[in-house]
Amino acid sequence: MTSVLALTGGVGGAKLALGLARVLPPGELTCVVNTGDDFRHLGLDISPDIDTLLYTLAGLADPVHGWGRRDDTATFMQALTALGGATWFHLGDADLAMHVERTHRLAAGHSLVAISDDMRRRLGIAQRVVPMCNEAVRTRVRTAEGWLAFQDYFVRRRCEPAVRELEYLGADAATPVRELQTLATQPGLRAVVICPSNPFLSIGPVLALRGVREALARCTAPVIAVSPIVAGGAVKGPTAKLMGELGFEVGHAAVAAHYAGLVDALLVDDDSGCAPGQAPWITAPTLMQTLEDRERLARCVLDIADRLAAAPRP
Amino acid sequence: MTSVLALTGGVGGAKLALGLARVLPPGELTCVVNTGDDFRHLGLDISPDIDTLLYTLAGLADPVHGWGRRDDTATFMQALTALGGATWFHLGDADLAMHVERTHRLAAGHSLVAISDDMRRRLGIAQRVVPMCNEAVRTRVRTAEGWLAFQDYFVRRRCEPAVRELEYLGADAATPVRELQTLATQPGLRAVVICPSNPFLSIGPVLALRGVREALARCTAPVIAVSPIVAGGAVKGPTAKLMGELGFEVGHAAVAAHYAGLVDALLVDDDSGCAPGQAPWITAPTLMQTLEDRERLARCVLDIADRLAAAPRP
Repeated sequence: MTSVLALTGGVGGAKLALGLARVLPPGELTCVVNTGDDFRHLGLDISPDIDTLLYTLAGLADPVHGWGRRDDTATFMQALTALGGATWFHLGDADLAMHVERTHRLAAGHSLVAISDDMRRRLGIAQRVVPMCNEAVRTRVRTAEGWLAFQDYFVRRRCEPAVRELEYLGADAATPVRELQTLATQPGLRAVVICPSNPFLSIGPVLALRGVREALARCTAPVIAVSPIVAGGAVKGPTAKLMGELGFEVGHAAVAAHYAGLVDALLVDDDSGCAPGQAPWITAPTLMQTLEDRERLARCVLDIADRLAAAPRP
Repeated sequence: MTSVLALTGGVGGAKLALGLARVLPPGELTCVVNTGDDFRHLGLDISPDIDTLLYTLAGLADPVHGWGRRDDTATFMQALTALGGATWFHLGDADLAMHVERTHRLAAGHSLVAISDDMRRRLGIAQRVVPMCNEAVRTRVRTAEGWLAFQDYFVRRRCEPAVRELEYLGADAATPVRELQTLATQPGLRAVVICPSNPFLSIGPVLALRGVREALARCTAPVIAVSPIVAGGAVKGPTAKLMGELGFEVGHAAVAAHYAGLVDALLVDDDSGCAPGQAPWITAPTLMQTLEDRERLARCVLDIADRLAAAPRP
């Protein structure tokens, strides 16, 4: 029985997911993960957000970058460079095991859901880690140079080109995982948490799947989002830059607008820009630097969910 | 203009290939390599004999095993083990770059010949390294347990099952590389050298390709083979065990019979078992322990070829 469902992308979202994992009893957290960043590189099927979450929950994540594995070696990349291979996307030696094994199992007919579940078990993770769907959904961005595949934009071009438009190729045709399909009516669901990942790049693909927006809007459990904006900007990554390029004022209001009608509360570090008529903005320290920060924010999210559940719904 | 063509398999053959590379002017050696050991593992296209030769000629080979790369790390295998992946075939981190890049380029439509040539250039190898064909040829062995794929027999089962029969699947349908097709009549060819690789497992697949036996028999340049048997046994690997299982007496006579009609001379460490009517057996120290041994044997092979070329042919 899942008690908390977290929707998450990569580094920022994984921090809160780790906090939730640590304050909830084992097995009570299910993380549904963005796969819009997934791509095929050097013939390998790479799922960056799933891996970031697995490494984070298993205590294997690189503490400096947030992605990749701690204490990984770079022997493969050095040898690949000598062979003239593509080096714009770094693949550590241990990290590579994930990609090779995933690619091998996918080719053998296993689903991404089944593979992810087996891997989290093998890495000793008590929480469930579920890709948003089994089918390929590919985020791409339109720039002055035309459409770019997500990782071309994000890693190869370091988010430099201004983004005019986003799309999630394949989202219309994909079937959301069961956890998303049953979200509206699942008995015993304590809360749905939208983690502080990029609302457009990381949560956007999940929301673009058929029925997910409707299910969130109808969800009987409280839906709480945490804004990724801290002190008026993004903690890391292109969230603030992208918001501006898409025509939004950088701040919580754009996040609130993105999640309008879907969430019961939006946690923000500062509610000075609060607009009337939107989901209640609740202030909390949302910057997660230490492990204690992650746990404290997780407890805060759960407290708010429990208070909302106890209060009469409007 | 190729002046010497070497037919070779893995470790043993690569030793003589290195000797030839060192005593011949740069660019005068072409190595045609067995691909019957090639296989697909974890979704990767692995060509063990090509890689052994590339590493040997580039000075990158592991000096202890003869295969794999010196100073390689094992981070990938450790991580793969934790994920429950197949660990019976060791893949070092640097070695993996070769397999990933080869697989990627094959999938993109490049030929194994073109990929091997590009890789040897990138590794700074002046000698040409040519797979025996572009198509898949797969050696398999019949044992009491039935047919086993080569690497299942060789690595996973450590050559333990007794071999009753060998076959080279796909050899009939494969097109030998140009160097093998033109072998009989190539102007300027100083010698063809059959390196001291396993005659059945490593040279057998090359000889099984359409027209190769006929081309060797008609070759106007001297064809010299070096027996892999030293002091009545194999230096390394299953050659002696396999010979016995296939019903041959372990010794040079079985090698001579295997190459009967194809070679002008067979270099052996001891000609006491010499049978009349076979190609002349020439004694030479064929054990290659040091780099000097490799160079000395290479010079010896070339001297014999030159003497045979100068002598009136029977």
